[in-house]
Amino acid sequence: MAKAPVLTPQSEDFPRWYQDVVAKAELADNGPVRGTMVIRPYAWALWEHMQAAVDRRIKAAGAENAYFPLFIPESYLRREAQHVEGFSPELAVVTHAGGKELEEPIVVRPTSETVIGEYMAKWIQSYRDLPLLLNQWANVVRWELRPRVFLRTTEFLWQEGHTAHATAEDASAYALRILHDVYADFMETQLAMPVLRGRKTRRERFAGAVNTLTCEAMMGDGKSLQMGTSHELGQNFAKAFDIVYSDDAGQQQHAWTTSWGASTRMVGGLIMCHGDDAGLRVPPAVAPIQVVVLLIRDEGDARAEAQRIAGALTDRGVRVRLDDRVDTGFGRRAVDWELKGVPVRVEVGPRDLAEGNVTVARRDQPDKATLPLAAVVDHAAAALDEVQAGLFARALAHRESRSADVKTVEEAVEAARTGFARIPYAALGEEGENRLASDAITVRCLQRPDGSVPDADDEPDLVAWVGRSY
Amino acid sequence: MAKAPVLTPQSEDFPRWYQDVVAKAELADNGPVRGTMVIRPYAWALWEHMQAAVDRRIKAAGAENAYFPLFIPESYLRREAQHVEGFSPELAVVTHAGGKELEEPIVVRPTSETVIGEYMAKWIQSYRDLPLLLNQWANVVRWELRPRVFLRTTEFLWQEGHTAHATAEDASAYALRILHDVYADFMETQLAMPVLRGRKTRRERFAGAVNTLTCEAMMGDGKSLQMGTSHELGQNFAKAFDIVYSDDAGQQQHAWTTSWGASTRMVGGLIMCHGDDAGLRVPPAVAPIQVVVLLIRDEGDARAEAQRIAGALTDRGVRVRLDDRVDTGFGRRAVDWELKGVPVRVEVGPRDLAEGNVTVARRDQPDKATLPLAAVVDHAAAALDEVQAGLFARALAHRESRSADVKTVEEAVEAARTGFARIPYAALGEEGENRLASDAITVRCLQRPDGSVPDADDEPDLVAWVGRSY
Repeated sequence: MAKAPVLTPQSEDFPRWYQDVVAKAELADNGPVRGTMVIRPYAWALWEHMQAAVDRRIKAAGAENAYFPLFIPESYLRREAQHVEGFSPELAVVTHAGGKELEEPIVVRPTSETVIGEYMAKWIQSYRDLPLLLNQWANVVRWELRPRVFLRTTEFLWQEGHTAHATAEDASAYALRILHDVYADFMETQLAMPVLRGRKTRRERFAGAVNTLTCEAMMGDGKSLQMGTSHELGQNFAKAFDIVYSDDAGQQQHAWTTSWGASTRMVGGLIMCHGDDAGLRVPPAVAPIQVVVLLIRDEGDARAEAQRIAGALTDRGVRVRLDDRVDTGFGRRAVDWELKGVPVRVEVGPRDLAEGNVTVARRDQPDKATLPLAAVVDHAAAALDEVQAGLFARALAHRESRSADVKTVEEAVEAARTGFARIPYAALGEEGENRLASDAITVRCLQRPDGSVPDADDEPDLVAWVGRSY
Repeated sequence: MAKAPVLTPQSEDFPRWYQDVVAKAELADNGPVRGTMVIRPYAWALWEHMQAAVDRRIKAAGAENAYFPLFIPESYLRREAQHVEGFSPELAVVTHAGGKELEEPIVVRPTSETVIGEYMAKWIQSYRDLPLLLNQWANVVRWELRPRVFLRTTEFLWQEGHTAHATAEDASAYALRILHDVYADFMETQLAMPVLRGRKTRRERFAGAVNTLTCEAMMGDGKSLQMGTSHELGQNFAKAFDIVYSDDAGQQQHAWTTSWGASTRMVGGLIMCHGDDAGLRVPPAVAPIQVVVLLIRDEGDARAEAQRIAGALTDRGVRVRLDDRVDTGFGRRAVDWELKGVPVRVEVGPRDLAEGNVTVARRDQPDKATLPLAAVVDHAAAALDEVQAGLFARALAHRESRSADVKTVEEAVEAARTGFARIPYAALGEEGENRLASDAITVRCLQRPDGSVPDADDEPDLVAWVGRSY
């Protein structure tokens, strides 16, 4: 008799599968206000590991964390016309506070560009103050009409970097450094997600940016998720916010600024990139629980052995959970840990132990291994590296199998039904982009033929990656 | 010729001194919206170390982090009458979003009690789900008419713990555990701040609580700062939000809840507890920079030696900054590091080096030590422990010198001009509390004669600590 699946199968309804995983793995609930979310402890622990890994890279890139206010005077957003155009329908506005109507309405930050610009202008005097490299971890609010947990929520959490530089070249190099050394490195080595690093077309750029760089990942259904972006803002913001410095000849110059962000949306990306019909598959590098030691039945030495194994793994620096809830059936607990995507499961029970063995299951493989007790700690620790590498390899193979080289817009539309199309940018152009848009298909990014990031969108031989997206 | 002081002296005008330190040590700026603040990188790094130390203790106490939405439907706040009474004049209200007027106004969370209560009610079914121990790190908003950076700001950052228990005893024990093992331990061992641990009188309790526990620290001017509180909410919140569980006999019972919080206000406490007329004095345990190695002049081996010392300290796990900005005068740089309160300063210059020496200054002592090069790393590392202990001892001695045992309300008023009064609670009572209040003096907490935390406010022989407060 076939068991009813815990989750809607991906092949049947991918969005429904996603909702099922989020609920059944106890990742998040919808908040009481439309489009907001409650991040439950397991998903929050995952986010904490992600945050820490991104934060280390941001600091290594020389940026310092700071904190700017949630509330922004409405007038600030009007200073940079393109910026307010990009955001105004998304704003949440505070009109009453302290029991009174406010004289000037206050906007809940949709991003902190404007308020940070204001303070950069105060703090920067001379070229010696540059580059000024700031980052903050914060919540931001953009009213969402079609919210989706983690992917598109009215309130989300992110880091937003904002930097000011003396020259266009320095700003440009820094925006690229963030793309490679912070975002792509984190996503590939920690999240085990292969990402396309590229340049957005003019149409897809951030409002007010002169260049937007992006990391794009393919999800299980072949759609793209924009995982993080890094923008060069030229002197647009510096002019709107009077960010000027005196150069070494004593002349006043406008600074060149960048901004870059990655958010809790990455949690959604991780779910949809690695998950399967049994649930999440969490890369060990960011897993709240890397190994679960599951006590099957509390008989004989079983509990003592389970504790010993858990202790030995903890001593190695592995994040371990001992599951000794023997009142709950073994099968139900195993399914639950699969749902939660714990990379490695060690099963300790009296039957195996009678022969001096335990069983080890890897979340990325169907088969279990039966091992002598003495080998289990080494084996489980090594399995973590294998799962990390295995998830990356699987995701890369998936992306490759769903990417097609095409020559025409029609072929691109066809290929984008199931994945990505690579098309010469010259064969597409702005007109082609408009035609794709009518099918809800976009150029995810431009790359050089060797996969590197172009310096301009009019370089010869650029390749456009085309697909549907979240 | 006497130099003009960098800061207003504390004895002349303590509040002005505080403002000066915040500005000159580049800790924070006022935000553009009244009462908000911009936390600059140095103060943010301090907060990050504080956060990490509190977070470790919260996790050790078994609570899990999660995240609940910024926005709360206004109706939620009306469910617990005392709660809304406590907060309504402080609320910021969003009335417009997505370009439209909202049907129901949304409140920006002043605390997350209500929204967390709502979800606890969903997640808790049986006694097996208890205790449910949650914490979140978040920004909250309470409209402030008399804002003061770090101490009282419209937006502040905090952690708020919310727990649900099966019995009153369990809730009570957990609230006390948080007071001792999380707050007081952190404040005393990391912030080097002695705190009074006690129970609030009925008058000073959190709205809706049946018991409020507090950690109170004496500032440099003899006033008290409430550094963190832990509340037992009885079944009040559980009844308002239907947090019920079925006990082991299958009966439906209301849970017993607690809440507890500590905020960026602690940064203000650290400044005002340890600071002196030269600036901040940061306890090494939370110092962003523990040792600054200051290159006096770039001559001979001086730069190489400074780098070697900085490297050797870094290898020991010390947080080091090498200051080699020799274009700026030595005196100005030394004053700047004193302002920022860096615990230990190693000065490396050609004159000392010619004799094989360097100079080490401790921020908590006026004298400098001249040491042979070979001894400096050990000496500087050991000095960090001495500064940590020295700051605590000094703060404790200060509190003791400014605390007086008194017998009457009049004496208490007199003692509270400069510090704390200890008075038998029986000699004060509610009537005495009212009289103190007319002089803006309050009972900071109640303790047993041995300094321990009472279980009730009608225990015999309780001592009331009385003082002015922030």
